[in-house]
Amino acid sequence: MATTKTESQVQQWTNLAQQLRVDSIRCTTAAGSGHPTSSMSAADLMSVLMMNYLKYDFSNPQNPNNDHLIFSKGHASPLLYSMYKAAGAITDEELMTLRKFGSRLQGHPTPVLPWVDVATGSLGQGLPIGVGVALAGKYLDKLPYHIWVLLGDSEMAEGSIWEAFDHGLHYKLDNLIGILDCNRLGQRGETELGWNIDAYAARAKGFGWNAIEIDGHNYDEINNAYAQAAQTQGVPTLIIAKTIKGKGVSFLENASGWHGKSLNKDQEAQAMKELNPVRSQTFPVQKPAAGQLSPKAPKKALALPKYDAKNGAATRKAYGDTLVALGAANPDVVAMDGEVSNSTHADEFAKAYPDRYFEQYIAEQQLVAAAVGMSVRHKIPFASTFAAFFTRAYDFIRMASVSQANIRLVGSHAGVSIGQDGPSQMALEDLAMMRAVYGSTVLYPCDPNQTAQLTAAMAEHDGIVYMRTTREKTPTIYSSDDQFAVGGSKVLHQSEKDQATIVAVGITLHEALKAYDQLQSEGITVRVIDAYSVKPMDEETLLAAAQEAGNKILTVEDHWPEGGLGEAVMEVFSQRDGLMPEIVKLAVQGMPGSGTPDELLEEAGISAHHIMQAVKALVKHNQ
Amino acid sequence: MATTKTESQVQQWTNLAQQLRVDSIRCTTAAGSGHPTSSMSAADLMSVLMMNYLKYDFSNPQNPNNDHLIFSKGHASPLLYSMYKAAGAITDEELMTLRKFGSRLQGHPTPVLPWVDVATGSLGQGLPIGVGVALAGKYLDKLPYHIWVLLGDSEMAEGSIWEAFDHGLHYKLDNLIGILDCNRLGQRGETELGWNIDAYAARAKGFGWNAIEIDGHNYDEINNAYAQAAQTQGVPTLIIAKTIKGKGVSFLENASGWHGKSLNKDQEAQAMKELNPVRSQTFPVQKPAAGQLSPKAPKKALALPKYDAKNGAATRKAYGDTLVALGAANPDVVAMDGEVSNSTHADEFAKAYPDRYFEQYIAEQQLVAAAVGMSVRHKIPFASTFAAFFTRAYDFIRMASVSQANIRLVGSHAGVSIGQDGPSQMALEDLAMMRAVYGSTVLYPCDPNQTAQLTAAMAEHDGIVYMRTTREKTPTIYSSDDQFAVGGSKVLHQSEKDQATIVAVGITLHEALKAYDQLQSEGITVRVIDAYSVKPMDEETLLAAAQEAGNKILTVEDHWPEGGLGEAVMEVFSQRDGLMPEIVKLAVQGMPGSGTPDELLEEAGISAHHIMQAVKALVKHNQ
Repeated sequence: MATTKTESQVQQWTNLAQQLRVDSIRCTTAAGSGHPTSSMSAADLMSVLMMNYLKYDFSNPQNPNNDHLIFSKGHASPLLYSMYKAAGAITDEELMTLRKFGSRLQGHPTPVLPWVDVATGSLGQGLPIGVGVALAGKYLDKLPYHIWVLLGDSEMAEGSIWEAFDHGLHYKLDNLIGILDCNRLGQRGETELGWNIDAYAARAKGFGWNAIEIDGHNYDEINNAYAQAAQTQGVPTLIIAKTIKGKGVSFLENASGWHGKSLNKDQEAQAMKELNPVRSQTFPVQKPAAGQLSPKAPKKALALPKYDAKNGAATRKAYGDTLVALGAANPDVVAMDGEVSNSTHADEFAKAYPDRYFEQYIAEQQLVAAAVGMSVRHKIPFASTFAAFFTRAYDFIRMASVSQANIRLVGSHAGVSIGQDGPSQMALEDLAMMRAVYGSTVLYPCDPNQTAQLTAAMAEHDGIVYMRTTREKTPTIYSSDDQFAVGGSKVLHQSEKDQATIVAVGITLHEALKAYDQLQSEGITVRVIDAYSVKPMDEETLLAAAQEAGNKILTVEDHWPEGGLGEAVMEVFSQRDGLMPEIVKLAVQGMPGSGTPDELLEEAGISAHHIMQAVKALVKHNQ
Repeated sequence: MATTKTESQVQQWTNLAQQLRVDSIRCTTAAGSGHPTSSMSAADLMSVLMMNYLKYDFSNPQNPNNDHLIFSKGHASPLLYSMYKAAGAITDEELMTLRKFGSRLQGHPTPVLPWVDVATGSLGQGLPIGVGVALAGKYLDKLPYHIWVLLGDSEMAEGSIWEAFDHGLHYKLDNLIGILDCNRLGQRGETELGWNIDAYAARAKGFGWNAIEIDGHNYDEINNAYAQAAQTQGVPTLIIAKTIKGKGVSFLENASGWHGKSLNKDQEAQAMKELNPVRSQTFPVQKPAAGQLSPKAPKKALALPKYDAKNGAATRKAYGDTLVALGAANPDVVAMDGEVSNSTHADEFAKAYPDRYFEQYIAEQQLVAAAVGMSVRHKIPFASTFAAFFTRAYDFIRMASVSQANIRLVGSHAGVSIGQDGPSQMALEDLAMMRAVYGSTVLYPCDPNQTAQLTAAMAEHDGIVYMRTTREKTPTIYSSDDQFAVGGSKVLHQSEKDQATIVAVGITLHEALKAYDQLQSEGITVRVIDAYSVKPMDEETLLAAAQEAGNKILTVEDHWPEGGLGEAVMEVFSQRDGLMPEIVKLAVQGMPGSGTPDELLEEAGISAHHIMQAVKALVKHNQ
């Protein structure tokens, strides 16, 4: 197959490629928008891939032996959908629903379609996610499937692409093949490197990859490149294909002003004449051989670590301990970290289960992308770094939500309470960032036993689940028998005399408890709620507290004032009829520097002392 | 200087390097934390740089001719501060305040110190910001200063580093010199590439840089490398120095377990014996030659574009028009974009002022970093891309705030109202993300005349200023005489009969106006507020509205429910005594797909129709 060809084979490749071009034009013209020319440049590349190399069972997208085809250049979705039609997976009628309200065929691919692994359209994400799938294939599934990633030339400027190159080499991912559709023209003109495919090759080789330069419209060269890539061992391959944007239609070829633009009906008719269309042929795709998933250890009962009330422990430490317990119980649990595993305590898992731990070094985009790739292969990934550094991967987290990925992110060293290291290391916006992810769950424990239970809950919870942990050792206030769940809260102090409610979480919960004692000694009784499930929040408990405790609420958080605990609490009350309670929010008010945790909590205005003052002001008013 | 050396020169380099080591140990021991060993590996590199190559007027950090020294490996701050002491800029007494509460010498460098350009500590940021400073130096200031960036080996895994490599080559930044302190050991063990300095060189060369491999403790090699780098024309240089972590003290050299760890008093005493310390010598740094900044066009009066009420216009278009007007008025205004300038309309500026426009291609981290670098050199940078893609640069935006940078970010294509392109292109978390940046300003106009005024206001406003623009053409509802300012709002409908207030912004303001008309026709009168300044918000107008219009407020936004307009409005009321108003929030409720803007606004629950229903429910209640 690889190095021979017959006349009829070339004819078949041509037939398929031309059909893909025809359909890419037709569906975008029907939609009135979209990217036909970005599709046409890669039609020859995809024709040969689909006909001779891709192993995919369209009737069973969950077949573990399937190859994975990721369109990192998601705007070439018309090409992808045209391939689905050519494979017989969708009808021509459905193809013509592209970009219409309610259609599965969105402007950029999403897993609303069962053959799409992950949403793309934010450039530079397909390859790093491909690295994640390739890690699962090579080291966990141990199946010979390939991950084919179609790349655009513009997206090669994204740093995340080079994180993927770095990791592809490090993990020797010879099951990963990038196909660079170098059509020279970006959205607004020539790309940075234009048709300088040698420059792309130099970069890929500089990162240790096998690089193959070809004419992306020469079937022989395409075919040989795939054959060579599929046989390459020990390193990933990048095929760099020099292509022509709009290839196949004279007035579109290499023409400016045609990015992201559909043809009108007249232009379509003209194009059809040039393409001599074959519109409805089905081209069967080879199914993969029936390989067996690598045998896994059996599942066991989960034995959570327990923490003694006599000793404090940092929640980050409890996270690490629990991750090991989860690893023992469930062979699908995998972990990765951004070269700070001795701080996040993911290193405990790395030591216990080295074959299920994937170091991602200081590359947070790749860290999240690897987790998303693991999710594609139904692993249960936990990815950790300093909470502040997840900001580096926010676009990947946002897109993971569109991808319907199930990933667990754990950010340590939250807030000013980290102390001396200073503001660059302090997460003060992570709650806002993570709350504003569709369908996300946001947890923030204050205690090791609570952390253990919530970490276990994360493994069972779908979607984007985030947990914030604390650097400092804090008191153990819960017993290992206490129960904690997503959507729950804990009322720590409650009486009929409550004049107000303090809602705290994580490090500030301990400040709230100190404030409670002092207030109590001064004759002021308050309710104290640990709102450890920041999203979703325990509405019932908050509503009851407002009703029973003077309709006065104080929130306190180690976070900027915007988008965190306080606003989450207000959100609960805004969904109810009637006036909202009196709500006062304490949050970090100025840019912190270095100092001890206590000094910084005090300066930020979120210490026990500030809580006490704020409660006094709150209950004095209206008296 | 470059290629000769005398015995006494080597002795001087040694003296300075040993003093830097001694002081790096002393100040971290005094602090009880910090990174002495990461400082010691680079002490020889910095000694030669400081003594023979760095041109810096410590008495005048704002001298435009000064070189820029950026510690991308910010955790080596003890070394940087020890250099300041050696240069006579700070006293030994101040050095010993490292990491203490109130000290300027924080755990990682910040511009609280006048000689620090930008905050570092989130790895991988120093080099891309250095690219921004280098762009300013080569193309705007046209001064021969150099940008020296000290890099750690761990951070070479960050994709942002390779965005900087890409742009350094593209813009031929021969004034930019990276110094890679390859000490092999990261936080938790060996780095990905260890001492394989050839691998780093291959990557740098793959990206077209001049790469020089040296022994980082051989003064001759260090000196020759700097000399060669300073003379290199047309491309940037990376000096790859093989170094030993903890160099100079036997029990620290190349030893595991010493990352981010200070010595105790006994260990310090032992180290001092080995280093034969010279503790208080001052080593003068050469001042730069007195070059003149490139002459600029004179400032002119600003002539804002004006939009006719008869025609609608997209706010993104008004942004582009206004940017050109700002460019005409103020020669310090510069612009950059992430290869979507024909969508954001930054291309208008690029055409009008090509010498002040810097294309950053699809590399959003570099986009923001370039703006930060421009801010270091007192330019007025406007950086634009799709609002959704600023999520890619959130860590850079967060750190820009710590850096006290003055940058303007403009994100287009916000919300579901973009239509067919689908969720990957829709910013639905940008308001939350940008609100949660310390000292940020967040603007969201609904009209071209308003956009013009707010864009002009951005140029005058310090800090991180963000504007969200809309893809779709919207009606022009304001005249060019209307006034808009940061912190303002506009009441569009107001009467004594107001039963509730609708607070809307951007695209939903137009939906609110439609709803107003329909409600009015049904006998329900409401106040309508355009809260275009999302942060800071016009508290006075909101408080008055609550008081005068039934204490009932409806907010509506094209954004996820978390962290956006609705929560910003609640924030205003939470700062007041007494119960909060009844607040109902409309925001995007489900994951959108493709569709027309109207279909998607309706599906998201934020159309005029939904606003009307929500207002009716709000005013019916309590009647």
